[in-house]
Amino acid sequence: MPGKEPLFERVALIGIGLIGSSLAHVIRREGLAGEIVISTRSADTLKRAEELHLGDRYEKDAAKAVEDADLVILSIPVGAYGPVAEHIGPHLKKGAILTDAGSTKGTVVRDVAPHVPEGVHFIPGHPIAGTEHSGPDAGFASLFEGRWAILTPLPDSDPVAVEKLTRFWTACGSRVDTMDPEHHDRVLAIVSHLPHIIAYNIVGTADDLEAVSKSEVIKYSASGFRDFTRLAASDPTMWRDVCLSNRDAILEMLGRFSEDLAALQRSIRWGDGDALFDLFTRTRAVRRSIIEAGQEVDAPDFGRHPEIRQPGE
Amino acid sequence: MPGKEPLFERVALIGIGLIGSSLAHVIRREGLAGEIVISTRSADTLKRAEELHLGDRYEKDAAKAVEDADLVILSIPVGAYGPVAEHIGPHLKKGAILTDAGSTKGTVVRDVAPHVPEGVHFIPGHPIAGTEHSGPDAGFASLFEGRWAILTPLPDSDPVAVEKLTRFWTACGSRVDTMDPEHHDRVLAIVSHLPHIIAYNIVGTADDLEAVSKSEVIKYSASGFRDFTRLAASDPTMWRDVCLSNRDAILEMLGRFSEDLAALQRSIRWGDGDALFDLFTRTRAVRRSIIEAGQEVDAPDFGRHPEIRQPGE
Repeated sequence: MPGKEPLFERVALIGIGLIGSSLAHVIRREGLAGEIVISTRSADTLKRAEELHLGDRYEKDAAKAVEDADLVILSIPVGAYGPVAEHIGPHLKKGAILTDAGSTKGTVVRDVAPHVPEGVHFIPGHPIAGTEHSGPDAGFASLFEGRWAILTPLPDSDPVAVEKLTRFWTACGSRVDTMDPEHHDRVLAIVSHLPHIIAYNIVGTADDLEAVSKSEVIKYSASGFRDFTRLAASDPTMWRDVCLSNRDAILEMLGRFSEDLAALQRSIRWGDGDALFDLFTRTRAVRRSIIEAGQEVDAPDFGRHPEIRQPGE
Repeated sequence: MPGKEPLFERVALIGIGLIGSSLAHVIRREGLAGEIVISTRSADTLKRAEELHLGDRYEKDAAKAVEDADLVILSIPVGAYGPVAEHIGPHLKKGAILTDAGSTKGTVVRDVAPHVPEGVHFIPGHPIAGTEHSGPDAGFASLFEGRWAILTPLPDSDPVAVEKLTRFWTACGSRVDTMDPEHHDRVLAIVSHLPHIIAYNIVGTADDLEAVSKSEVIKYSASGFRDFTRLAASDPTMWRDVCLSNRDAILEMLGRFSEDLAALQRSIRWGDGDALFDLFTRTRAVRRSIIEAGQEVDAPDFGRHPEIRQPGE
């Protein structure tokens, strides 16, 4: 972007899946970095990133990628953070910002912070955006547009660095919130982790039935089931790591969900139509709020059928 | 449609919500009836149907609507079938086909069959199509396109009438399957009823939390939660009746779901990453099959973002 000073001289993207490649696209489009350096563990993925021209330089070794980088973003499964942080730590530039895009924050702080040298600004982050696709081909520049990015600065985080990272996410199209890591993990446990776990579980239950064939489940899936399959098609490694690293908050939400489900099951068994009607009415309002907040499309059926008219049109 | 003989002289639509109004649109577009007569219990809804020009005639009394009709379709909550069938039974024309669009079939047969006079062909049916919207404004002609319609003929159903009803659904754009009512109810319990109940439940659980505010649930819903809110915004009366009328099959599926969830919860508690990874990998394939069967869009995120490129494009 000629005539405009980039926000960072050099950005290093560690991991180049859906989030990393979307960052590469939007950093390029918005001219946010003088140079984009990409590193990822798999040689094939790194080669693919190069074929897609996602960066300016490609490094097999993450330690080489982060040298002289002003911003380093980890977009890898959270289970891999510890060893990667240990490996790159000594090579981070003084004054650099180290952040990440991981879905959990408590274990990220635990695993990364000990390896961050004095003078490097470690500010954990999490863009609340995604699709069910993964890998370097899945990224697109508008992924973060209108979505929220959460930062979880540590008590001693430099406000100037937090402000600069906030400007970065704003330039990517996001709105930015800050909160502490523990609260982040409880919020995400209910809005993201529990929905994914429930989706994985129901697809597994349906896949296991003897009385109903797999082909019947697939043929008639438009009656509801298919909505769950999107989340249940998400990256298995990422979600295994999320489950392991946010265990306590997830178990708390699972406990509440199961308790509520037992009550609902009892209402069905005993034919308590009023209790069913009350719950089914209350939940309807939640979707309306999400649409009004700009976090969901207003078209019926997620807009899958472009030919559907809006009511009243 | 000039020059083309309509499949039925007169069609009576009892109930004019999402399904009834979509039928009205497609019957008109395809010229499937000489006359469309509409009846519904609520005077306001009947008036609205007339304002939308959904039919040719509007009757407050369902018994008057079915007189001389060759095809009568009930599209009302299944809990209302008994009294409506008792009311219209004596007015059904000899040789007419009586069918429905209800989400359950066992109780439909139980509640309706005793009121069907000799010489009327009662063939229960269920189009596997819908959106989360309801009411006469929600309908559109292409709702049934590419979807399945299930017929559950009784042992003594006239094959000629079944064939004619099959031609009707085919003309509406659907593919037609037949099965017995009990099997229908077990299939739908897993592909439709359980997903709706789970969606209602998780939205209720999130709505009840104290540690996470409602506004946080809404702001960050793009991370997974919002997918569930579509089903949880469905018509409360319809879904109360589904739960009450397919109780046994639903309780069976809920039992299996809860058992599987308990096992998954245990894997999370004890950090069994391999078990999590195996389940999360297996479920991924199911979505691919649904897309290949033409029952789901191939675009990431349900195609909510029209700007998303397909991988490899």
